[in-house]
Amino acid sequence: MVSHIGLVGLGKMGNNMRARLRKGGIEVTGYDPRPEVSDVATLTDLVAALPAGRRVVWVMVPAGDPTRAVLAELKGILGEGDIVIEGGNSHYVEDQERAADLAEKGIGYIDAGVSGGVWGLDNGYGLMVGGSEDDVAEVMPVFDALRPEGPREEGFVHAGPVGAGHFAKMVHNGIEYGLMQAYAEGYELLAAKDLITDVHGTFKAWQRGTVVRSWLLDLMVRALESDPQLKRLDDWVEDSGEGRWTVDEAIDLAVPLPVISASLFARFASRQDASPAMKAVAALRQQFGGHAVKEVD
Amino acid sequence: MVSHIGLVGLGKMGNNMRARLRKGGIEVTGYDPRPEVSDVATLTDLVAALPAGRRVVWVMVPAGDPTRAVLAELKGILGEGDIVIEGGNSHYVEDQERAADLAEKGIGYIDAGVSGGVWGLDNGYGLMVGGSEDDVAEVMPVFDALRPEGPREEGFVHAGPVGAGHFAKMVHNGIEYGLMQAYAEGYELLAAKDLITDVHGTFKAWQRGTVVRSWLLDLMVRALESDPQLKRLDDWVEDSGEGRWTVDEAIDLAVPLPVISASLFARFASRQDASPAMKAVAALRQQFGGHAVKEVD
Amino acid sequence: MVSHIGLVGLGKMGNNMRARLRKGGIEVTGYDPRPEVSDVATLTDLVAALPAGRRVVWVMVPAGDPTRAVLAELKGILGEGDIVIEGGNSHYVEDQERAADLAEKGIGYIDAGVSGGVWGLDNGYGLMVGGSEDDVAEVMPVFDALRPEGPREEGFVHAGPVGAGHFAKMVHNGIEYGLMQAYAEGYELLAAKDLITDVHGTFKAWQRGTVVRSWLLDLMVRALESDPQLKRLDDWVEDSGEGRWTVDEAIDLAVPLPVISASLFARFASRQDASPAMKAVAALRQQFGGHAVKEVD
Amino acid sequence: MVSHIGLVGLGKMGNNMRARLRKGGIEVTGYDPRPEVSDVATLTDLVAALPAGRRVVWVMVPAGDPTRAVLAELKGILGEGDIVIEGGNSHYVEDQERAADLAEKGIGYIDAGVSGGVWGLDNGYGLMVGGSEDDVAEVMPVFDALRPEGPREEGFVHAGPVGAGHFAKMVHNGIEYGLMQAYAEGYELLAAKDLITDVHGTFKAWQRGTVVRSWLLDLMVRALESDPQLKRLDDWVEDSGEGRWTVDEAIDLAVPLPVISASLFARFASRQDASPAMKAVAALRQQFGGHAVKEVD
Repeated sequence: MVSHIGLVGLGKMGNNMRARLRKGGIEVTGYDPRPEVSDVATLTDLVAALPAGRRVVWVMVPAGDPTRAVLAELKGILGEGDIVIEGGNSHYVEDQERAADLAEKGIGYIDAGVSGGVWGLDNGYGLMVGGSEDDVAEVMPVFDALRPEGPREEGFVHAGPVGAGHFAKMVHNGIEYGLMQAYAEGYELLAAKDLITDVHGTFKAWQRGTVVRSWLLDLMVRALESDPQLKRLDDWVEDSGEGRWTVDEAIDLAVPLPVISASLFARFASRQDASPAMKAVAALRQQFGGHAVKEVD
Repeated sequence: MVSHIGLVGLGKMGNNMRARLRKGGIEVTGYDPRPEVSDVATLTDLVAALPAGRRVVWVMVPAGDPTRAVLAELKGILGEGDIVIEGGNSHYVEDQERAADLAEKGIGYIDAGVSGGVWGLDNGYGLMVGGSEDDVAEVMPVFDALRPEGPREEGFVHAGPVGAGHFAKMVHNGIEYGLMQAYAEGYELLAAKDLITDVHGTFKAWQRGTVVRSWLLDLMVRALESDPQLKRLDDWVEDSGEGRWTVDEAIDLAVPLPVISASLFARFASRQDASPAMKAVAALRQQFGGHAVKEVD
Repeated sequence: MVSHIGLVGLGKMGNNMRARLRKGGIEVTGYDPRPEVSDVATLTDLVAALPAGRRVVWVMVPAGDPTRAVLAELKGILGEGDIVIEGGNSHYVEDQERAADLAEKGIGYIDAGVSGGVWGLDNGYGLMVGGSEDDVAEVMPVFDALRPEGPREEGFVHAGPVGAGHFAKMVHNGIEYGLMQAYAEGYELLAAKDLITDVHGTFKAWQRGTVVRSWLLDLMVRALESDPQLKRLDDWVEDSGEGRWTVDEAIDLAVPLPVISASLFARFASRQDASPAMKAVAALRQQFGGHAVKEVD
Repeated sequence: MVSHIGLVGLGKMGNNMRARLRKGGIEVTGYDPRPEVSDVATLTDLVAALPAGRRVVWVMVPAGDPTRAVLAELKGILGEGDIVIEGGNSHYVEDQERAADLAEKGIGYIDAGVSGGVWGLDNGYGLMVGGSEDDVAEVMPVFDALRPEGPREEGFVHAGPVGAGHFAKMVHNGIEYGLMQAYAEGYELLAAKDLITDVHGTFKAWQRGTVVRSWLLDLMVRALESDPQLKRLDDWVEDSGEGRWTVDEAIDLAVPLPVISASLFARFASRQDASPAMKAVAALRQQFGGHAVKEVD
C-alpha cells in the first residue's frame, strides 16, 4: 500500500490536505504553479519523486479546464498500474469519461468527494470515493490519514465504481443546500417576530438535546455570535455545480426534489437585482385590476 | 324578484357595477361617503329609497373594518326578510359569523365573490355566491345583470350555503396566483435566452391554437406591447388576503399546495429589500468554507 | 414560395396536419411506414414526388431515434436549397446540431414547435419556429395553412434562429405544466371543502368574466362534465421531455422556477407506488420519537 | 428557588421527565389519571403535596382539550405567586390567552417547548421557555435538571415573554421538517442510482467531518442499519400542529418559507391514497391531447 503520494494543487484545500497527510504519516510531494508553495518545479518532477511501484497522484485543482489539463499531462507521464485520484468537484459523468481515457494506458482512476471545508485540516475530511476495489485498497492509508478520527466507516465510504464518489458528494451538497435553507427560513421567521427577544440565544440553545442539532447549527451560532442580526452580510449566495447537478440528476431519474430545488432557486433569486418574473406578475396585476405597482423612477 | 337595490360603496368597483346594473335594467340607489358620487346622503336614506317588500342592499366597501361598520349599521336599519349581499373580499368564516348576526333580526345574507377587475364593466363580472336558495333566487335579476353575456352557468354559480361564494372566490384567486407565476417564470426564461429574439412575439403567438391561451396571456401580451422588456415596472408585487387564506385553508385541510404557495412566497420575497434567510445562508457558507460572500459596505 | 410539401410521419398529429394542410390549399405527399396511410412507398419516392426548385419536407415522427433516422436518410436524398422542417418535440440543442449537419449539403433547417393537440385539426395549430429569414419566408404558406384563423402573429412566431422554435415550445410546455397544476390544486381544495356543494358548477362559472378563464379551464369543465369527481381516472401523470428540459434550462441560466419545477415534481410523485423519501422521513420520526408509522404488512 | 414540583401527565414524555428530574435532584410529585403510574390520587392532592411558598406545577398532557381541562382545574386550586409551566405542544397564542386567564388569580405562567423525544431521558431535553424574568428564575433548577449536560445556554433559552417558548419550539419543529425532507430527498436520489452500491454506507460515512453531519443524520444511519432499503416502513408521515403553525405564522408575517412548506406538503401528500390534484392534471391531459392516462378498473 502507498505511503508517499504526489499532490497537484496547493490552494486553500490542497495545502491543508498536504499538512494533514504529513501529520498522518504520509509522505507528500506537492506541486503547484506557484513556486513559493510547490515542492517541485513541474509535474514531471513530481512523478519522478514518487517511489517505484504503483505511483499515486492526487489532483486537487479547480473543476473543469484546470483539472482536464492536469489529467491530460498526467496521462503522458504516468503508466501501467499507477493511480490518479481526482479530489476536486468534478461531475461524476466526467469521472467515467476520464477513467476510460486513462485506462488506455493502464492508469487507474479514483474519484474522491471531499467534505469539510477549512475545518478539515483539524477535524479530518469526510471522504466518498468511487473506483475499483483494488485501487481503493492501494490508496487506503491516504484516505485513513485524511479522514476524521474514529471508526473508518463514519468518515469514509467506498460508494461504488468510478463516479460513485463524486455522485455521493454531489448528493451530499444537495442535502447541504436543503439543510442550510431550512435553518435560514427558521432564522428569518424568528427574526420577524417581536415576541422573540433573543434569536441568537434560541439558536444557541438548540445545540444540545434538540432534534435540530448539527454542525451547521453550530456554525449558525458562531455566525450570530459576532453579528446577531447579520447586518454585515449581503443576501447574496453563490451556488456551485453540485447543487445544480443534483437537481439535474433528479430530473433525469424522475425523483421529486422539492426542498433541494427550492433551496437552489432561492440562491438564484438572491443574486438578482430585480426579478424579471415578478416584474411580469406586477405587469399582469396592473393590466387586470389597475392594482398598485411600483414604477421605476 | 328584486328590481331595485341599494349599493353601498362607489369606489372603482362599486361605481362600475352601478353602471353595469343600470344598463342591465336594475334600478340602483348608491351610497358613498363622498357626496359627489353618492345618490343619497346617508345609509338610512338609501334604505328608505328602496321599494317595500324584500329590500336588497349590496355592500361593496373595503374588507375588514369598513365592511364591518356598514353591516353593523345596516343591521339597525333593515329588518325581517331583507337581504344583505357582501360583495367585497371577505373571508368566508366572517361571512358565516355575519350571517348569524344578521339572522337575529331576520335579515338574509348572501356572500358574493366578484371577479373581473376593471374589465367587468364591459365584459361582465364572474360571480360566485353563497346563501340560501330562497335569498339567491330573490336576487337573481341582479346577478344576471352583472354577469357576462352568455349562459348563466358560465359566469355565475351558487356554490353552496353562506360562505361558499367567498370560499370559491378565494380559491379562484389562489389559482390566479399560480397561473400568473407560471407565465412569469416562462417570461423570465425566454428573456434570459439570447436565442429567442422576439419574446413579445412569442407570447403574442400563443394567443391562438396553443394549450396556454387564456385571458391572462392576452393581458401579458398587452403589457409587453407597450413595454417589451418590462423596464418601467419594479419587481414588487402585493398580495391580497385571498392568496394567504387559500394556503391557510389548504394547511387546515391537509391539501398539498406547492404551486400556489410558491407563488405567494414569491410575492413576499419580491417586497423584501434584503432576504434575512439568504443572509443566513451566506453566513453559513462563510463559516464553513470561507466562501465568497458580499459584505455590506 | 412552396405550395407542395412532403410530410413524413402520419400518426395522430401528422395525419391531422396533412388534412388541415390540404384543406388550406397546400398539396401534401405523405410518407409513413404503414402503407395503409402512406401516399408513397419510400422516402425516396416522397422526395421524387415534390416539384423541382426548393423542396420542403416536414418531419413529424417521434423525437429521438426515429427523428434522427429520418433526418439521416433525408440528408442523403435532399440537396442544396432544400428545406427540412423538424416539427416533433426535439430538444433545441439537437436542432442546432442537425442544422449544422444538413448544412454540409446546403440543406436548410427549420425547427417548428407545434401546439394544439387533437384540437389542432379544427382550431389550427399554434406555431413557434426557428430558422433563417429566408427559409422561413419560403415555407410561410405552409405555416399559414396550419395556424389558426386570425392575425398571423397571434398563432405564429418566428422566434429566432435554428433552435428558437423548439425552445419557445419547450417554455410553452413548462408554463402549461404550471397552469395545469394551479387549476388542479384549486380543484383539490374545492373538493376537500364540504361547504362547496357544486365544484363542477364553480369551474363552469369561471369560464366567463373571471381572471382565470382560459382554454385549459374550458377543458377542466369538460372533464368534470362527464366525471364530476374524477372517479374514473387514476392519479398518474406522465411527463414529456419538454417539462424536464425547461427546468434543466432554468438551472443552466440560473433562473428560479419554483412553480414549474413543483409541477414537474408532482408528476414524478404521482407515478410512484411508494415514496422512498417519505419512507425515510417516517424512519427518522420513528427513530427520534417513537412516532406513529405504518409498517408494511 | 423551587426544589419540589408537581408534574401532571405521566405518559411517555412525562414519565421520562419525572425520572430525569429526580435523578437531577428535584423532588417530583406526579399525577396521572392512571393510578399505576401516579404518585397521588387527584390534582388537589398533588398541589397539597407541594411545599409552601411558590408552588410550581408542570403540565405535560396532550395539547388542546386535555391541557385546557388541567389548566382550568389548576386555576381553581393554585393561587397568588404559584407558577404553572405548560410543557406540551401548545400554540403560542393559546399561551398568551391562558397566561392572562391565570393572572386573574395571580398565578404565573411559563410556556416551555421541550425537544429531544425518547432520547431526552438520557441526553437531556432542549428547552425553550417564555415568561417573566421572575418566574423563569424561580424555576431555573428544574430547567437545569432537565436540560442536557454542558453550558446552560447550549440547551436552554429564555426566548422572551409568555408564548416565546412555544413559538421558538414551533420554529424548531418547522426547521426539523425541512432538515428531514432534505436528508430524505438525498436518500431517494442515492437509492435511485445504480452507480451507488452502498447507500447505507454513504450515510454512515457522512457522520464525521462532513458539512451535513447532525443528530438526524445519526438517526438516519440507525434506521438504515436495520432496514437498509426501508422495506419495512410505509411512506406515510404524520404531521403535528407545529409544522402547520409555522407555515401559518410565516404567511401572517409575509416570510417566504419554500422549504418548510414543501416539507409539510410532502407529508400531506404521503397520506393520500390518490391525489385529487393529479387526477385533475390527468383529466386535463386526456382532454387536450388524448394523452396516456390510467383509468381506474
